[in-house]
Amino acid sequence: MKFPPIAPLGQLAMQSARERQNRLTKPAGSLGRLEELSIQLAGITGKANPSIKDKVIITMAGDHGVVEEGVSAYPQEVTRQMLLNFLAGGAAINVLARHVGARVVVVDMGVANEIPTRDEKLIRRRVAPGTKNLAKGPAMTRTQAEESIQSGIEIALAEIAKGADIIGTGDMGIGNTTPSAAIACVFLKQHPKEIAGRGTGVDDEGLARKISVIERALEVNRPNADDGIGVLAKVGGFEIGGLAGVMIGAASKQVPVMVDGFISTAAAMIAVSLAPHCHEYLISAHRSKEYGHSLMLEWLGLKPLLDFDMRLGEGTGAALGISMAEAACKVLSEMATFEEAGVSQVGA
Amino acid sequence: MKFPPIAPLGQLAMQSARERQNRLTKPAGSLGRLEELSIQLAGITGKANPSIKDKVIITMAGDHGVVEEGVSAYPQEVTRQMLLNFLAGGAAINVLARHVGARVVVVDMGVANEIPTRDEKLIRRRVAPGTKNLAKGPAMTRTQAEESIQSGIEIALAEIAKGADIIGTGDMGIGNTTPSAAIACVFLKQHPKEIAGRGTGVDDEGLARKISVIERALEVNRPNADDGIGVLAKVGGFEIGGLAGVMIGAASKQVPVMVDGFISTAAAMIAVSLAPHCHEYLISAHRSKEYGHSLMLEWLGLKPLLDFDMRLGEGTGAALGISMAEAACKVLSEMATFEEAGVSQVGA
Repeated sequence: MKFPPIAPLGQLAMQSARERQNRLTKPAGSLGRLEELSIQLAGITGKANPSIKDKVIITMAGDHGVVEEGVSAYPQEVTRQMLLNFLAGGAAINVLARHVGARVVVVDMGVANEIPTRDEKLIRRRVAPGTKNLAKGPAMTRTQAEESIQSGIEIALAEIAKGADIIGTGDMGIGNTTPSAAIACVFLKQHPKEIAGRGTGVDDEGLARKISVIERALEVNRPNADDGIGVLAKVGGFEIGGLAGVMIGAASKQVPVMVDGFISTAAAMIAVSLAPHCHEYLISAHRSKEYGHSLMLEWLGLKPLLDFDMRLGEGTGAALGISMAEAACKVLSEMATFEEAGVSQVGA
Repeated sequence: MKFPPIAPLGQLAMQSARERQNRLTKPAGSLGRLEELSIQLAGITGKANPSIKDKVIITMAGDHGVVEEGVSAYPQEVTRQMLLNFLAGGAAINVLARHVGARVVVVDMGVANEIPTRDEKLIRRRVAPGTKNLAKGPAMTRTQAEESIQSGIEIALAEIAKGADIIGTGDMGIGNTTPSAAIACVFLKQHPKEIAGRGTGVDDEGLARKISVIERALEVNRPNADDGIGVLAKVGGFEIGGLAGVMIGAASKQVPVMVDGFISTAAAMIAVSLAPHCHEYLISAHRSKEYGHSLMLEWLGLKPLLDFDMRLGEGTGAALGISMAEAACKVLSEMATFEEAGVSQVGA
């Protein structure tokens, strides 16, 4: 599989943004993370004064054969029900996207049951009606893994063609913390007990079962960290592959990606393993409460913006993060300089 | 000095908000800090479904006689220049307030030089043209301390009468990390070297000077933690007293206060020492990069929302925090319940 080329960050734009930050009416560096973010966004977009106007959150859904092992607190049917909730505007991601002025793009990457709607807002990219049980063999074929990534790339490019200048990632899929934790185990070379968490809320027994399921999945499938497509095929999910594709597609067009929580971060690990340069285009929105997330962020070299003990997915953390990225751009472009405002500088 | 009474949080409203959070289409608790915040806001307002529409940031400015000791990297003139920048809309607080849809109320609590403007947006509550040098004696008289607090209460009540349903605090005052650190030392019973930081950016020598200035201020004035007005008078500032008043005024009207960084937190310590119940109405927007801020937050029992290495003041952290509070309210009121959306619950 060939991926679109990804350029390094624009050093000139970053330099120019950094210099402008030092001329704005505030002590140099005093806006901390917002300043860093504005400089990264300048590098990503190649523009000294990046602006964020058309904000898009791509929320991808898929089902997981592994739910038959009892790894989730919720029935599989909820994936489809929540997709309908997204389309009706009643889910957390709808509320938070409206709050930050983003639009939500909902994608069926492979939900077990057909979605009973004619709503044209739903993008249908069903690879298959759910993955197979990864505890017994590969979750999907290599061709399906490539198809899911390709769909993600295409969806990102289509949204960028419509004007998107930042993309947030989101997921929905009952059971999907299990493949995500499995993916993290492969790249981090960690035992599942160091990574797996309670997901939507399994009890101690459920967590022990989940850890043993991931152990079996790794034994049965023997995924190899040097083969990202293979990792996705063996222990991944369709929405995870789709999100990895979204990240690669966005990076190839110099569009920043606001990475949501645990599942999106697993997707980021796949994306970076396939297209290493894409890592510079990623911004981590928040530190998930899901166990193991911090190790994954460390591996990716990402420092999360927020630490809100959130563990919902859908792109909810990404929505809040996008608002911070927009704030960072506005500081850079809208603040007056010392000269413009007639304000004295240090030591004057 | 008498303060308006402050009611305890509304337990019924909190209980109702907590129950509603558990019926919304997400795993219980999965929105972490946003859920907690929505419940606190229900308690503060006494409304099961609080909403935040009219957002106000009150940015108070004052000058400090202690600048003659060389405790700041910037000349005193900058306080006045920045006030004009606020009125012209070019400062960081203007940009971030616009971003979150808040209005900025600018108050001259005692800037050294008259503000050369007829702009009616400027609220003039000049207690005096700057405080006296706290390293040599009290920064202000007891009457002036009371006047600054009373002004803050009145300004908060006036904004609430106009419709404000959340108030963010902000400060401007060259040299004001010195009185703020001194106030923190009094309540925390800590040596200045455990609290004082670099402010707008003094070097090692400047920091050492600042620490010794605070040491002298505490020796000369002997402020007593049991006498909040006395602490403010001896080692405080007019904008700090004003902000303490804003907090007490807002709490008395069941309006939440988003506390900005280091200076606002020092004001919160004064406010809580005078009107202990006001503490439940405070939300900490962010952890300042200024040394010692964490200890102050701990004393107040506040957990900051953001950790962005910011150290600007003006209300910039409060602006971002207000957006989070608004998001929390929207989640509570706008999300669909499991029943409404036809989504299955745990174990169904």
